[in-house]
Amino acid sequence: MRKYKALMLIGDGMADRPLAELGGKTCLEAARTPHLDQAAKEGALGLLDTVAPGLRVGSDTSHLALLGYDPRATYTGRGPLEAMGVGMEVRRGDLGFRCNFSTVDDNMTVIDRRAGRIREGTDRLAEAINQIGPIEGVQVLFKESTEHRGALILRGEGLSAEITDNIDPHEDGRPVGRCAALEPGNKEAEFTAQVLNELVRRSYEVLKDHPLNKERQAAGENPANIILPRGGGTAPHLKFFHEVHGISAGCVVEVGLIRGLARYLGMDVMDAPGATGSLDTDLDSIRATVLAALDKHPFVLCNVKGPDVAAHNGDAPAKIKMIEAIDGMFGALMPALKGEVVVAVLADHATAVSTRDHTGDPVPLLLWGPEVLTDTSEAYHERAASHGGLNRFAGLHLSHVLTNLMNVQEKFGA
Amino acid sequence: MRKYKALMLIGDGMADRPLAELGGKTCLEAARTPHLDQAAKEGALGLLDTVAPGLRVGSDTSHLALLGYDPRATYTGRGPLEAMGVGMEVRRGDLGFRCNFSTVDDNMTVIDRRAGRIREGTDRLAEAINQIGPIEGVQVLFKESTEHRGALILRGEGLSAEITDNIDPHEDGRPVGRCAALEPGNKEAEFTAQVLNELVRRSYEVLKDHPLNKERQAAGENPANIILPRGGGTAPHLKFFHEVHGISAGCVVEVGLIRGLARYLGMDVMDAPGATGSLDTDLDSIRATVLAALDKHPFVLCNVKGPDVAAHNGDAPAKIKMIEAIDGMFGALMPALKGEVVVAVLADHATAVSTRDHTGDPVPLLLWGPEVLTDTSEAYHERAASHGGLNRFAGLHLSHVLTNLMNVQEKFGA
Repeated sequence: MRKYKALMLIGDGMADRPLAELGGKTCLEAARTPHLDQAAKEGALGLLDTVAPGLRVGSDTSHLALLGYDPRATYTGRGPLEAMGVGMEVRRGDLGFRCNFSTVDDNMTVIDRRAGRIREGTDRLAEAINQIGPIEGVQVLFKESTEHRGALILRGEGLSAEITDNIDPHEDGRPVGRCAALEPGNKEAEFTAQVLNELVRRSYEVLKDHPLNKERQAAGENPANIILPRGGGTAPHLKFFHEVHGISAGCVVEVGLIRGLARYLGMDVMDAPGATGSLDTDLDSIRATVLAALDKHPFVLCNVKGPDVAAHNGDAPAKIKMIEAIDGMFGALMPALKGEVVVAVLADHATAVSTRDHTGDPVPLLLWGPEVLTDTSEAYHERAASHGGLNRFAGLHLSHVLTNLMNVQEKFGA
Repeated sequence: MRKYKALMLIGDGMADRPLAELGGKTCLEAARTPHLDQAAKEGALGLLDTVAPGLRVGSDTSHLALLGYDPRATYTGRGPLEAMGVGMEVRRGDLGFRCNFSTVDDNMTVIDRRAGRIREGTDRLAEAINQIGPIEGVQVLFKESTEHRGALILRGEGLSAEITDNIDPHEDGRPVGRCAALEPGNKEAEFTAQVLNELVRRSYEVLKDHPLNKERQAAGENPANIILPRGGGTAPHLKFFHEVHGISAGCVVEVGLIRGLARYLGMDVMDAPGATGSLDTDLDSIRATVLAALDKHPFVLCNVKGPDVAAHNGDAPAKIKMIEAIDGMFGALMPALKGEVVVAVLADHATAVSTRDHTGDPVPLLLWGPEVLTDTSEAYHERAASHGGLNRFAGLHLSHVLTNLMNVQEKFGA
């Protein structure tokens, strides 16, 4: 039996709604995409609800689903994913939190939740947090992210995410909250809350007189003198990708969040030099890295972030340009893929230029490769996909659709 | 309100992928099927994922779904179904196992897992196993299957399938394993493991000097001197078909596995003389038995095995011939069914001539009968179905689609 490889090529937020400024066309309809259209003729289209019809999803929940993990069963909040996204090594069972560096006064009243949107030196502050050391046997791991943001991991026995999410008051002028167990009597949650409250207190102790904050105050800037964790969740006990699907996977993605998730799932995250995650990204480098990944692994995920960035900016021309660039990259890949690799082209969600945010519209899915049953599609876009032969299904099944066409899937039953 | 009967007509493994040797057509597209095409014009088509999109399934899991039972919730491994398939009367809660007759030496090392692929006399060996009698109050029931295969049932109080699956070492030259509880401290599992280990030991005692084995050894053949159970599972607590759907059902199927499942679900399994389950089956006999079944029951399941057999052989011409024979049988049924019976024609899964195995591709579903909303379909095959008016849904719903069109379904809600 001939086995094939597979490429899941995702234009982040590439799907969209009809736009008045484009005469009622979507960006995909308005873009010139000869290679994707050729693949549509040689393959089949359909609509995909990456999580469920009408559901507005993030890139994290959608990628979980697209890789074969039900996000409704496994998603435990942003915290653990945030930690994965900044490059921390997250372990199953870790408690993860998003954090802000903030400014408080002596009475623990929040003066500035974003510490003047501090940009420089947060790595030094993170170092100070990491020197706090274990609290009641619980390891404390911290890493700075962009501006005032950071991620926190608590690692140890007897922790629980069943705690209130009120340390950060989400408003300036209000006191830092004290975390507690959601259910009184939940010993693990009470212990976790106690550790977390103690950590927040100690972060103030180590940061308030930190040289960097002295400098900031001297310059008239708000000191980053505390960390305020929020959005805590337990890193889910997910099987690795190769355990779920029986094959190894490579990953060429630009966004930290998805890179972190892929790493957590045991995928081989490969760097494309010059991939910026923005409109100026180097698609030729991404193309070359995808081919290198396909040399090493039977399954490769590639996510190009640009269309999402353009749509968040409300910039239809930039989104169209990005889509056309992705079409060019796909065209350059086609000769190497043809007859060898099953390709799925899709978006992880729609990002509407009109709303400048993710929407819950279905995304167009193209399947192109050996043994794909062709349909009558002539072009790759939302409207063609809504009449495609694949009809409509949920993103959770896409990985099985691919491993089926790759001829590598275990049989369920006899 | 006029009530109708229903026929679920399954060409086993009839769906397929496009084949180069057929100019990119599937076997269904290449076959001449005037009667099914006529029904497509008078009815409606769609794609069915018998279990879920992309999932490679067996006939057991797919038939569970098609009859209204979620296999992901109820499928407990091959053991119980194997016992049903060889015609044993399986009861809810029984522990079922697949077994091999094997050859071991005095040190319980496996010399030949298949006992020289023994063909004759396994009924006599089964009789010896059945005379072992209850072990610690647990009934032991055994039945031989083809060649070295058999099925075992343990029946009694306090049994659990939460045991290791290591008695059969799955390789010659290795010792027979000792089964244990998966979780230490699980008393029922520990008891079950103890009973099973004792049964394996006693099977050696009653078989090692069995006259048949003396004959085999005299002829230089490996004795079938032990049974090695594997793939244990608890027969699921499924409701009977008539409890789920409120109507009785008949069943005309060729394969032991599906016959056993149908019997377990309380369906009336009717024999079609001359039905061989292979390419030489007597479709006229099957046709007559289907009509007899429809006289007795409002719902009838018919499965013709031939297309699957041909596809497993990689034989497209034989598969096409079998499809055309099924079309002929359907044509002969049409006058009797017209206006009286809602018919669903489908496959339980695709079996690809190219891979010679089941694949996870969707199957074409035809609905034909009174009050079916027609679509624009002109022929019955995968590609037409991918643009059919029924769109795409999961096999678990098909039984409801039928009882709805039969006008016999209880209302859910007010």
